[in-house]
Amino acid sequence: MTQLEKAKFNDISKEMEEVAANENVKVKELLKSIAQGRVVIPASTSHQNLKPIGIGEGLRTKINANIGSSPNRKDISEELEKLRISIKYGAHTVMDLSTGGNIDEIRQAIIKYSHIPVGTVPIYQAAIEQDTIVDLAESDFIKVIKKHIMDGVDFITVHSGITKDSIKLIDKRLMGAVSRGGSFLVKWMKHNNKENPLYESFDKILFWAKKYDVTLSLGDGLRPGCLKDATDKAQLHELKTLGELQKQSFEENVQSMIEGPGHVPLDQIEHNVKMQKEMCRGAPFYVLGPLVTDIAPGYDHITSAIGGTLAAMYGASFLCYVSPAEHLGLPNVQEVKEGVIASKIAAHAADIAKGIKGARDWDDRMSEARANLDWNKMMECAIDREKAEEIRKRCQPEDPMVCSMCGKFCSVKIIKEMKEKT
Amino acid sequence: MTQLEKAKFNDISKEMEEVAANENVKVKELLKSIAQGRVVIPASTSHQNLKPIGIGEGLRTKINANIGSSPNRKDISEELEKLRISIKYGAHTVMDLSTGGNIDEIRQAIIKYSHIPVGTVPIYQAAIEQDTIVDLAESDFIKVIKKHIMDGVDFITVHSGITKDSIKLIDKRLMGAVSRGGSFLVKWMKHNNKENPLYESFDKILFWAKKYDVTLSLGDGLRPGCLKDATDKAQLHELKTLGELQKQSFEENVQSMIEGPGHVPLDQIEHNVKMQKEMCRGAPFYVLGPLVTDIAPGYDHITSAIGGTLAAMYGASFLCYVSPAEHLGLPNVQEVKEGVIASKIAAHAADIAKGIKGARDWDDRMSEARANLDWNKMMECAIDREKAEEIRKRCQPEDPMVCSMCGKFCSVKIIKEMKEKT
Repeated sequence: MTQLEKAKFNDISKEMEEVAANENVKVKELLKSIAQGRVVIPASTSHQNLKPIGIGEGLRTKINANIGSSPNRKDISEELEKLRISIKYGAHTVMDLSTGGNIDEIRQAIIKYSHIPVGTVPIYQAAIEQDTIVDLAESDFIKVIKKHIMDGVDFITVHSGITKDSIKLIDKRLMGAVSRGGSFLVKWMKHNNKENPLYESFDKILFWAKKYDVTLSLGDGLRPGCLKDATDKAQLHELKTLGELQKQSFEENVQSMIEGPGHVPLDQIEHNVKMQKEMCRGAPFYVLGPLVTDIAPGYDHITSAIGGTLAAMYGASFLCYVSPAEHLGLPNVQEVKEGVIASKIAAHAADIAKGIKGARDWDDRMSEARANLDWNKMMECAIDREKAEEIRKRCQPEDPMVCSMCGKFCSVKIIKEMKEKT
Repeated sequence: MTQLEKAKFNDISKEMEEVAANENVKVKELLKSIAQGRVVIPASTSHQNLKPIGIGEGLRTKINANIGSSPNRKDISEELEKLRISIKYGAHTVMDLSTGGNIDEIRQAIIKYSHIPVGTVPIYQAAIEQDTIVDLAESDFIKVIKKHIMDGVDFITVHSGITKDSIKLIDKRLMGAVSRGGSFLVKWMKHNNKENPLYESFDKILFWAKKYDVTLSLGDGLRPGCLKDATDKAQLHELKTLGELQKQSFEENVQSMIEGPGHVPLDQIEHNVKMQKEMCRGAPFYVLGPLVTDIAPGYDHITSAIGGTLAAMYGASFLCYVSPAEHLGLPNVQEVKEGVIASKIAAHAADIAKGIKGARDWDDRMSEARANLDWNKMMECAIDREKAEEIRKRCQPEDPMVCSMCGKFCSVKIIKEMKEKT
C-alpha cells in the first residue's frame, strides 16, 4: 500500500511517525493531510536506508538540489561529491538529471549513497539513448520510467500535462518551451503528429508508481522561460491538465505533487501559487525558482531565492534550487553549494513568515549569541560556518570581541557594556 | 534655493530636467513630487561634477553602497577602488562610513572622484575624534555636520529621531541598538542624562543642510537588529519622531528621506513600508535590507536582497546594499561588488513588479538573445558579464550554440530549429 492508501485507511505508517516527529506535528494531522493529497512522503519501497521527509501544507518548506552529469561533464565521483555537499548544506532531496556518461551507474550510485529522497526525469534517458528523439516508440517512454522506478527512485518528473492543444499555445511565446523534457515531447508530438505518450499512457505510469509508492512530480514542460511568457495561456492550459492528472493519481492512491514556474515577475507570484492550490486541490507545489528577473546569469541563485521566498510564503511547499551556473553551464560542486544555501535561506525565511512552529528559534539563538558577542556560538549558528569564519578572520582586530567592520566602535559592545554596568 | 524650495515655487531646475530625462518621466510631474516631499534630489551645491539622481515615488528604485575604512583597514586607494566597483555595477549613491585612518582625506577623495551622490554619517567622526564619546559637547555634533557639508556631501544621516523616551524602550530588546550612530547617542544620552543633541539642535542641522541643499537622511538609530526586535515599540516611537522631523524639514525647504530597518520577518515588510508612508507623508523610504533572517552571515547580501525586493515592491524607494561581510567584518572590493549586484537585482525585480515604465525591456532583450542562442548578446545583457563568461567558458561544449548544462539536448536549440523549419 502507498502512504496515500494507508492514510485513507487511517493506518499510520512508520514513515508518517518519523515525519511527524521531525516536523513536530501530530501524526494524526499529518495523516489527514496525506489522505487529502496535501502532503506527500516520497519514499520508494525499494530505496534502502531512506530517511523519509514530508512535503506539503503545514510542514517546513523543503528544498531540492539538481545534480547530475551532462554530455561533456560526466564524472561519477563529482556527482557523488555534489550529493554530499547538497546534504551537508541542507537539501532535503536531490534530483539526478544526468544526461552524460553511464547514466544508469550514476543514478544507482546516487540512490545507494543518498539517505534523502532521490528524484529523476526518466524521459531524459529515453531521449539520450535513442539517436533521434522523434524515433522513440510510445512504449520506450514507459520502459524508462519502469527502469528508474525499479532502481529505487523516490519521485519522478513526468511531463504528462503537455497536450496537442497546449503546444499550439507556445507559438506566440518569446522563449517557447525551455523545459528539457518539455522540448523533447513537443518535438516528438509535432513530428509524429500524436498525443503526448506520457498523457495517453498515464494509467501505465500510475501502475508502476503505485507498485513501489513512487511519488509523481507532475512536470511543467511548458513553464515560462522568461518574464514575458509568464502566466500565459500555455502555462495555464498545462496547469489545468496537471490538476486533472493530480485528481486521477489521487483516486489511484498514487502520491503526486505539481511542478511550477520558472520565470515570473514578483507581482504575479502570489496569483500563481493561489491558482495552483485551487486547480490542484491543495497538492504540494514544487517550484523551480521562480526567477524574478531574466538579466542575472551568474546570480540566478539570488533571483530564484527572491522568488522562492515569496512563493513559499504564499504556500509553495517545495523549492527547487537554482545554481549560479543556471543558463550558462552545468554547476560544479561550489555552485551546487551556493544554490543550496540560497534556497535554504529562502525556505527558512518563508517558514518564519508562514508561522511554522519553532522556525525562528534558529534566528533567536544566533541573535542571542550576537548580543553576547559570543563568536563561537555565532559561528555554530551560521548557515555556512566555514565561509563566516573565513570572512571574520581575514582582518580580525586585536580585540577578539569585535569585528573589523566597526572595530572598537562596535555598537553591540557599547550596548553590552552599558547593560553590564546597570 | 534648495530643489524643494524651487519646486514649491514651480521653478524647474537643471537637476530636475536631467533627472526627468533619465527616468523618462515628465518634468512637471517630477517637480510636483519634489514639491510634496515625495521625491528628493540629493545634490549638494558644493559637489562638483555631480550627475544628479532622483529618489522617490514613481522613479526607479535606487541603491546605495556603503564604503569606507575601519580602524584596522584604512587604505584610501582600496576605498577608491570600492567606489569604482560600486559605480561600475550600478550603485546610484555611495556612503562613506569611514572610521579609520585620515577620515577627512578619504571623504574628500571620494567626493572628488564620485559623480554619483555621496552620503556620510557625521557622528562617526565626532565620536572617533573624541577619546570618549560621552565627553562630546553638544556643539561638537553640529560642528562635524557642518564640516561634512562644507566638503560637499550630498546627503547625511542624522539620528535625530532618538529621544529620551524612546531609549527606555530598548531595554526589553534582545539586541538593543545595533546602529553605530544609535549606540553612540544612547551612550551619550544615558551618561549625560540629556536629550539627544541631534534632536534638540535639529534647527541648526536644518540651517546648514539648507545652505548647501544637503538632503537629510533621517536615521533609524533604533532599527531592529534581529527578527525578534522587529516592528517593536522602540522602532515605532522613533519612526513617529522621524515623521515629525520630516514635516519640520519640509517646512524649512530641506529635502529629507527616512531610514528604515534592518532585520524584519518577511510578513512584516509590507506593514513597515505602509506605516512609513503614512507617518512620513510619502517621503522616500531608505531601507537597510531588510534582512529576512538572522542566520546567514556570509550571505546577508542574499537575505537583504529578498527583503529589499519586497520592500521596494511595496513602496520603498532606496535600498542600502548589504555585503556578504555584514556581521563579520569590513567588506573588501569583491564583497562590495557582490553586495551591489544583489541589491541591483532586488531593485530591478521590484521595478518590474511596480510597473516602472520600460523596466522589463532589459529582461526582454536578454530573453530574445536567449531564444536566438545569441551568446554575445546574452553576455552584453548580463548584469555581470565577466562572471557569466567565466562560468560559460569553464566547460564549453564543442557546439558554440549550446552550454554544458544540456549540451546537445538544449531545449532552446530544439525549439529554435523547429521554428526555423516551419
